[in-house]
Amino acid sequence: MTLKTKAPKNLVRPIVRKLHAYVPGEQPRIKGLIKLNTNENPYPPSPHVLESVKAAVDGRLRLYPNPAAQPLREALARLHGCGAENIIIGNGSDDLLALATRAFVEPVQEGRSSKANPETAPARSRSTIQAFDPSYSLYPVLAAIHGARFQKIPLAPGFDLPALDGEGASTDWDHEAALSFITTPNAPTGRGYATSRLEGICRAQRGVVVLDEAYVDFAAQDALRLALELPQVLVSRTFSKAYSLCFQRVGYFVGPAELIGALDKVRDSYNVNGLGQVAALATLEDLDYYRANFRRIIQTRTHLARELERVGFRVNPSETNFLLVRPPVGTAKEWLGKLRDRRILVRWFDVPRMRNDLRITIGSQSEIESLIRAVRAILKTQGSGSKRAS
Amino acid sequence: MTLKTKAPKNLVRPIVRKLHAYVPGEQPRIKGLIKLNTNENPYPPSPHVLESVKAAVDGRLRLYPNPAAQPLREALARLHGCGAENIIIGNGSDDLLALATRAFVEPVQEGRSSKANPETAPARSRSTIQAFDPSYSLYPVLAAIHGARFQKIPLAPGFDLPALDGEGASTDWDHEAALSFITTPNAPTGRGYATSRLEGICRAQRGVVVLDEAYVDFAAQDALRLALELPQVLVSRTFSKAYSLCFQRVGYFVGPAELIGALDKVRDSYNVNGLGQVAALATLEDLDYYRANFRRIIQTRTHLARELERVGFRVNPSETNFLLVRPPVGTAKEWLGKLRDRRILVRWFDVPRMRNDLRITIGSQSEIESLIRAVRAILKTQGSGSKRAS
Repeated sequence: MTLKTKAPKNLVRPIVRKLHAYVPGEQPRIKGLIKLNTNENPYPPSPHVLESVKAAVDGRLRLYPNPAAQPLREALARLHGCGAENIIIGNGSDDLLALATRAFVEPVQEGRSSKANPETAPARSRSTIQAFDPSYSLYPVLAAIHGARFQKIPLAPGFDLPALDGEGASTDWDHEAALSFITTPNAPTGRGYATSRLEGICRAQRGVVVLDEAYVDFAAQDALRLALELPQVLVSRTFSKAYSLCFQRVGYFVGPAELIGALDKVRDSYNVNGLGQVAALATLEDLDYYRANFRRIIQTRTHLARELERVGFRVNPSETNFLLVRPPVGTAKEWLGKLRDRRILVRWFDVPRMRNDLRITIGSQSEIESLIRAVRAILKTQGSGSKRAS
Repeated sequence: MTLKTKAPKNLVRPIVRKLHAYVPGEQPRIKGLIKLNTNENPYPPSPHVLESVKAAVDGRLRLYPNPAAQPLREALARLHGCGAENIIIGNGSDDLLALATRAFVEPVQEGRSSKANPETAPARSRSTIQAFDPSYSLYPVLAAIHGARFQKIPLAPGFDLPALDGEGASTDWDHEAALSFITTPNAPTGRGYATSRLEGICRAQRGVVVLDEAYVDFAAQDALRLALELPQVLVSRTFSKAYSLCFQRVGYFVGPAELIGALDKVRDSYNVNGLGQVAALATLEDLDYYRANFRRIIQTRTHLARELERVGFRVNPSETNFLLVRPPVGTAKEWLGKLRDRRILVRWFDVPRMRNDLRITIGSQSEIESLIRAVRAILKTQGSGSKRAS
């Protein structure tokens, strides 16, 4: 063969070359480690769910799954009092968050925001994704992949929602932005938001708003009705955390049929695996089991907050299955290492306003007792020599 | 609450509004139907695979799966004699085909191809996805979703590859196109292509080429080595069809680390569900079982081709797990209905060059005997009154 290969250059889009390489999270050998770092549920799926999935592991694996996850959409529609046309299922809710960028946001056009050819305000808004900061770190990644402009709006002190109109309003919030992500309750802060506040923000917004309720089962309120009442609002839910199904990747959006239909058009035809659909359907038949777990996790959260405050930690209010806490002495990074030495994994974010805090997932009661013992032991070894980092 | 809702307009991108709504394929109640319409494998996954998946249905479902599917990448790297950095796993190979459009192809810029501002040839190529026609119907859909230009290059008579250089060459084929999809063996025609022909096309190409080998386990040759030798070539494989795992959505690409790395950057972090990873890994431990199935399916294909030719069908050569055939009398559409009346589902494509043909998946030996009996019965009722459609 005497064929010559032409040397290809620049096979990869400039926008992709600029992205940071994806670094997978730590995958510890779980044996003997207490894993309080990724907000997984400490309790397994219900026996009914495990039995249902096992019973489906047979010759049907050779067949394509239901492409629209229709039985699951119908079951969720009954649960939420809407139609199947108001529900779309994703390969985890991350899949749907990405689809939302592709369905609702125009990529920034090359050379359009030059001085010679300044971008008009409407064009700017059509390419803008905004979210509060700190919040879910995936949103800016999705914006970068799509070639959209990402705008961070700082949360108020205490991680409360900022005033967006009137006196003291944030000037950066864009009421015309193509897509706004609001994590509620928020991660990684744990703070919950009143539905009435969210309603005000949504009603003033002319672009699409996604209320990302990944942690809502641990909260006092939910905002689902806004997705059924307002034409621009979608609510994102997931089976991962509250329903102990991270492994199987099932999330969903609820919202107006027009927006759901647009997402459906840009979705992969078979985006949700079959055993994930089976597991999610069985979950909906067994909600009492999960509600009992939510109560247990909330009780454990209250207990942990009290115990940490007792030994001097600052504990942020939480409506999630994790706590954001500030140690009384030493840096958060030191605590991360010291807890790891005791075989306990927690999460530390090296970002502004979070650098002094640890995020601790609410594990089982016995895991949290182990954590409390470890915290006390670390404090003893530190004595009163070090000072709180702030 | 006295808040007013601003009436949002145009929440959905124009490019998405223009897309045709996705219509899910027919989901028959399988009981009593012989399903020869979607190229699924008639044989179940191996007992070892089913046992491995069942054994994994436990408390681990609450945990996130391996985000990079690392053990599976390593096992595939050993199989193919390359490194894990040459492998990326997708939520089915469709996931990866979509990622390829996003990693390698620039969307067409609005207003750039107007007469006033004609697009340059290089800009045109950067936004071009091309594929042969007829071929996998997903490619133009992916191009439309991404806002890329899609170019169909007609296959030669007999669905052979056209001459792309020199005398009689197709003038539309773009050697600079950002992305070229080549299904090999081809679907829905069944035709296989010699690796030497593919090598010539790939070497002359300055953009990325994806050789989509979804059906390669039923073919005489594969082109995997091209993905390990050439900097612009990716080979796509799937566990769906040959490995009886449609339900669990696992596909992969093999290719140069630079291209794999670019795809990895635009991938969802947890794109492959955990039980799918378990199933695929177990599959690789049991390849003899599957190879025996390939031989059975190929024998059944030979038998079906011979029997159909005997009663007057025109049968295209096939290196896949399906046959594209033309009935001796009556239209293909009529045959679709008549077979369905006998509870046998086959596939008919209402597109140019395919309208007179049926695509029949190679089922089990007994399913194919049922089909042959049905074909003979239909021919008997038709007598010699009708004529071949052509």
